[in-house]
Amino acid sequence: MTDHDTRAEGTASHNTMADVENAMAPEQNEALAQLYSDFEAKNLSPLWTQTSEVLTDVPRSRAVPFLWRWNDLLPLAARSGDLVPIGRGGERRAIALANPGLGGRPYATPTIWAAIQYLGAHETAPEHRHAQNAFRFVVEGEGVWTVVNGDPVAMRRGDFLLTPGWNFHGHHNESDQPMAWIDGLDVPLAEHLDVGFFEFGTERVTDYSTPSVSRAERLWANPGLRPLSGLDSQVNSPIAAYRWEYTDRALTAQLELEAEGFPATVEQGHAGVRFTNPTNGGDVMSTLRAEFHRLRAGTMTPPRREVGSSVWQVFEGRGEIVVGEHTWTLDTGDLVVVPSWVQWEIHAETELDLFRFSDAPVIERLNFERTYIAGRER
Amino acid sequence: MTDHDTRAEGTASHNTMADVENAMAPEQNEALAQLYSDFEAKNLSPLWTQTSEVLTDVPRSRAVPFLWRWNDLLPLAARSGDLVPIGRGGERRAIALANPGLGGRPYATPTIWAAIQYLGAHETAPEHRHAQNAFRFVVEGEGVWTVVNGDPVAMRRGDFLLTPGWNFHGHHNESDQPMAWIDGLDVPLAEHLDVGFFEFGTERVTDYSTPSVSRAERLWANPGLRPLSGLDSQVNSPIAAYRWEYTDRALTAQLELEAEGFPATVEQGHAGVRFTNPTNGGDVMSTLRAEFHRLRAGTMTPPRREVGSSVWQVFEGRGEIVVGEHTWTLDTGDLVVVPSWVQWEIHAETELDLFRFSDAPVIERLNFERTYIAGRER
Amino acid sequence: MTDHDTRAEGTASHNTMADVENAMAPEQNEALAQLYSDFEAKNLSPLWTQTSEVLTDVPRSRAVPFLWRWNDLLPLAARSGDLVPIGRGGERRAIALANPGLGGRPYATPTIWAAIQYLGAHETAPEHRHAQNAFRFVVEGEGVWTVVNGDPVAMRRGDFLLTPGWNFHGHHNESDQPMAWIDGLDVPLAEHLDVGFFEFGTERVTDYSTPSVSRAERLWANPGLRPLSGLDSQVNSPIAAYRWEYTDRALTAQLELEAEGFPATVEQGHAGVRFTNPTNGGDVMSTLRAEFHRLRAGTMTPPRREVGSSVWQVFEGRGEIVVGEHTWTLDTGDLVVVPSWVQWEIHAETELDLFRFSDAPVIERLNFERTYIAGRER
Amino acid sequence: MTDHDTRAEGTASHNTMADVENAMAPEQNEALAQLYSDFEAKNLSPLWTQTSEVLTDVPRSRAVPFLWRWNDLLPLAARSGDLVPIGRGGERRAIALANPGLGGRPYATPTIWAAIQYLGAHETAPEHRHAQNAFRFVVEGEGVWTVVNGDPVAMRRGDFLLTPGWNFHGHHNESDQPMAWIDGLDVPLAEHLDVGFFEFGTERVTDYSTPSVSRAERLWANPGLRPLSGLDSQVNSPIAAYRWEYTDRALTAQLELEAEGFPATVEQGHAGVRFTNPTNGGDVMSTLRAEFHRLRAGTMTPPRREVGSSVWQVFEGRGEIVVGEHTWTLDTGDLVVVPSWVQWEIHAETELDLFRFSDAPVIERLNFERTYIAGRER
Repeated sequence: MTDHDTRAEGTASHNTMADVENAMAPEQNEALAQLYSDFEAKNLSPLWTQTSEVLTDVPRSRAVPFLWRWNDLLPLAARSGDLVPIGRGGERRAIALANPGLGGRPYATPTIWAAIQYLGAHETAPEHRHAQNAFRFVVEGEGVWTVVNGDPVAMRRGDFLLTPGWNFHGHHNESDQPMAWIDGLDVPLAEHLDVGFFEFGTERVTDYSTPSVSRAERLWANPGLRPLSGLDSQVNSPIAAYRWEYTDRALTAQLELEAEGFPATVEQGHAGVRFTNPTNGGDVMSTLRAEFHRLRAGTMTPPRREVGSSVWQVFEGRGEIVVGEHTWTLDTGDLVVVPSWVQWEIHAETELDLFRFSDAPVIERLNFERTYIAGRER
Repeated sequence: MTDHDTRAEGTASHNTMADVENAMAPEQNEALAQLYSDFEAKNLSPLWTQTSEVLTDVPRSRAVPFLWRWNDLLPLAARSGDLVPIGRGGERRAIALANPGLGGRPYATPTIWAAIQYLGAHETAPEHRHAQNAFRFVVEGEGVWTVVNGDPVAMRRGDFLLTPGWNFHGHHNESDQPMAWIDGLDVPLAEHLDVGFFEFGTERVTDYSTPSVSRAERLWANPGLRPLSGLDSQVNSPIAAYRWEYTDRALTAQLELEAEGFPATVEQGHAGVRFTNPTNGGDVMSTLRAEFHRLRAGTMTPPRREVGSSVWQVFEGRGEIVVGEHTWTLDTGDLVVVPSWVQWEIHAETELDLFRFSDAPVIERLNFERTYIAGRER
Repeated sequence: MTDHDTRAEGTASHNTMADVENAMAPEQNEALAQLYSDFEAKNLSPLWTQTSEVLTDVPRSRAVPFLWRWNDLLPLAARSGDLVPIGRGGERRAIALANPGLGGRPYATPTIWAAIQYLGAHETAPEHRHAQNAFRFVVEGEGVWTVVNGDPVAMRRGDFLLTPGWNFHGHHNESDQPMAWIDGLDVPLAEHLDVGFFEFGTERVTDYSTPSVSRAERLWANPGLRPLSGLDSQVNSPIAAYRWEYTDRALTAQLELEAEGFPATVEQGHAGVRFTNPTNGGDVMSTLRAEFHRLRAGTMTPPRREVGSSVWQVFEGRGEIVVGEHTWTLDTGDLVVVPSWVQWEIHAETELDLFRFSDAPVIERLNFERTYIAGRER
Repeated sequence: MTDHDTRAEGTASHNTMADVENAMAPEQNEALAQLYSDFEAKNLSPLWTQTSEVLTDVPRSRAVPFLWRWNDLLPLAARSGDLVPIGRGGERRAIALANPGLGGRPYATPTIWAAIQYLGAHETAPEHRHAQNAFRFVVEGEGVWTVVNGDPVAMRRGDFLLTPGWNFHGHHNESDQPMAWIDGLDVPLAEHLDVGFFEFGTERVTDYSTPSVSRAERLWANPGLRPLSGLDSQVNSPIAAYRWEYTDRALTAQLELEAEGFPATVEQGHAGVRFTNPTNGGDVMSTLRAEFHRLRAGTMTPPRREVGSSVWQVFEGRGEIVVGEHTWTLDTGDLVVVPSWVQWEIHAETELDLFRFSDAPVIERLNFERTYIAGRER
């Protein structure tokens, strides 16, 4: 499955063992019951009674498609700001999307944590570090600096900001206004794989200066230019912040090039960039992919199914998304979860800007990727 | 955390929000209760009440160290052979190790499925394929051929055999004796990541011939030699079977070289080989590592902790293993689970041969690896 | 020799066979003469008479250190402009640096072709393509567009422009002034390896439009952003032009960061960037490395020796370079060749900007790299 | 040119500047002569007078196809054994193939040194090391051990043995018979790139023991098994000797599999293996590829042209090779040079075993590869 199969959903269906057991003589049934009981006593579990659950025809995620409205999230975050202090112990005023399919766990998908984080005027979120990889995306507002390993990184509308695993980081709001943004982390993956480490840092951030660009950007956010002091390979992107200015410019250029008659877009009317690690051209971090998409008004993407889960956040514009059985209208800040192998498509009413993040690097590094695109079956 | 940190367990401890809430005025507490209720209604979950669970100081696996005795497994498998037919629907007479920490799920660790599989004299397990990667290891017996994508692969004592994802495979027992072996798969990982696909193949295996070596071995199991017809990169090892003859010879050579005064072993008295993909030198499959270890009688390995989970099976010899708080004697066929970051060491009473498999390729590809070895702290 | 050895020159010296032959009896000498004659007749050549030439203690390049003055080159190029038409057959009005050590061949080093190219007002150099990789660097002037695979790329002062192997390319001067720049190619390497292919394209360039940025830049010259339509790996950088604006900004930032107390430069007072392929973080092309260096006034680099050859061109500022036995003052446009393993150092009188290109990717891909830096011996 | 183009020879032909000059007025011609003279004085060389030499339509190697008969080489080597002592200074009794096209240089091709080496009964060739990569291939005989970094490696008929760059090595003949074999090195490439380093080692080899397999083989020549003490990536293959037993077995298996109806060979009747580095699946060394080919009696390979040069040595059997304009019969030990892009094909009269080595890793790492196979044009 190393190539990108584009196959429709399989139709095979498993039989259960029920037929077999029904056909058994009573004494056999008794012996079987005893066998199953002995299995349990020895912490064993037979495959044959649960093959169809263990080996599903296609991915059937417990996570469900879901939408959270920014208009719901933001007021709740603001109320938290009034009631819940920020500081050591709680660490962050972050409110996670809890996928209804995942049994109350605070996880957007089986691999992705997504939350709205809220920092009041002049508050500081103390420094800590963890093995889990994190990023932030700013749908509106400004005035907060996130300090990553001592480097102050301004957060502004449209920016995508990295906190790779084991980097100390804290945030401080230098403005008179609260600010909210979204956090994305690989927390559920890290929990499942049992890879998490955590350490407290300082109670305050280590540097309260407020430069408009970080040192990391000054060194690294230059197109195609690599500092001679930074030639070693790096697991995570050294670019601390991917600024909206550049993202917007790149998307604009793609649609213009398409209009001029040159290949540049993903498909007609659909521009897109991936945020990448300049030291190797790959994803920004080992476990999380981040992309920005822009659809020209009127564009409809073809229906797709992909292995792996993703989260979309509307940045600007209006449209609708179809995910499995659901059709939702989209407005600024809204967040939508697409579980693995659930079909999705997006329709742009106006020009529509969307931020997307996913666990695709995990799926690809483990060679589980498959994609189905309607109309492009082989 | 791209380098292999060797650090002792951190000592940081999270405070809970309890102190904060205790210090609140009653009306604030009421507002907080309302806030939490509103969170729930909107499928949201605050981080600050659960930071210490979500971000643990060190990996704290729900999986627990556990041992299964071959002397328990084999008779139960034999009873299954008497009672449970093999065929379409149940697919395999496989009895999985169910780690007591994992809530009754048939999983040895959060990422690994391990089972004893049992095939009666002249039985056939029908063909199917799945995205999940699988291998078999034979602790005793012979007479079964596993047919992988049409290539019949003899199974004999000490052999390690591959069924990479999406390869059709079935088994047939050509002898007058039943045969049992262990299966290892990445089923729980695939379930968590929602990457599983499954298809039925033929009811019987596609080739009932019984060659002593498979075609894959004839093409590929030649040291350092690559067929000119096989120069493309391959995600999974094309070597269908790693024969005990070669494994034994390699381990013997390492201990002899050590005795002759040359570097060859992992550490004094401890030989080891990794089963690898000859097309790239990496692990045999993207999600599973397999190794064989041989300890000279009297050898004690230094205490180790590693990120990621593993399963050991004793192949021959006696000794004991210490895993966390447990000390277990080891005998042929016994299986032991070591969860992530739980300390382990092995003491060899006699010369001790051990097969080991783990999720290390997953941990390393996602850059979460850390190892602690007592006495080698930096 | 995969690590970067930093070792001083070896002192071993080979004996010749002369001593041996002197000690021989006359009849033996005669037999030897007959043997050598028979070797020659059969196109054979004994090693033992030439060991010290074939296997030198350290690299002893036939290429010699050399300097060409821009003030010499430019007038000669202008005279060529008056006398030599440009067009099919001659293809380019390029005048190559011919290293005096290389027997009159038009090669700057054994692997590198470097030339000044001159295009008169409103002239066109016709399109062609070749397997050899090429770049251009503009030390002064503007008004020419190089059209690479149909994409018009403006050439301006300080820009570094790519024409990777097998891309059709032609140039046209849209201004009323002539323009000169330098070309760098791997022609001598390609000749030695016998890898060259060549094809004529159109007599005129395929697109006479004059955009200020190329389509390639619009798609690719965005820091850390990769178009979703360009996710396949690419041998050569898709960035057609690395603009001076970004190079200058990156160098400025490094010196500022150093002044602020942060690690950013190669060494004290010495900033540098490498031009890289954003799809993999490596060199722009397989055979040529390009870098830009800026030395703060007063900076002296430590003496270095490196395996592989390079060419420097002064972009701005004054200073001097020591190469082997030579010390040369440096002024704008001057070109200096540093052969393999010849010691060099640079002293900046004013702030000194230098463009450098080399065969380092060849040396590194073939695992022949070694570097000696005075004061950093291990 | 990253894909493998299969194109026929181009037909474009360059015009010279002669026509231009003929059309000039006399005073212009005089000015041009003065210009060319001034170029020469400044060590400059115009492209336009030599475009067709510098940029050839297709590779036109100075090296020519050539054949050396083993029956010529061996007696000459034996005469050298009588006349020329072996020892420090001369270092090796090696007689190199000197391609008639390469101006008397002792080089088989522009990148490859190939020689017959001869060691008399009980002689020792002293230890040394060099940056150049080397291998040996034994067409007949035994009794010599090559000691590579202290590891004694027996040399026997059919074996392919490695001495990667910068490994100390010497040879000693423990038998009462002389022994001859061929050496292959990247000497001309290293000379052209100026990358050579050389050091003397001990006058005698460091270990005169005579094991039948080397320590390196005991650790590494196990199919698909990697020692846990050798998990770091290695530039060169750690397998010191690729034994004929395994090569023969692999080739035999391919032809048997083909006869059984399974894909296994390069093309009908043509088996082949590449010697590879088990740590990464790639070539044994960075600059040299080695392969073994076996043609069934009666097999004719399709005409091929490849970028890069190679040398064939007949190991066993009879047939003929067509290289460019030449057709040569082939017998045991005969050596044939195929320069870059010269067409070749082989016809097997009997079963025909051939050893082949080439500079293909260089060509591929620098992305210059192209192959033309008659009948497979795209």
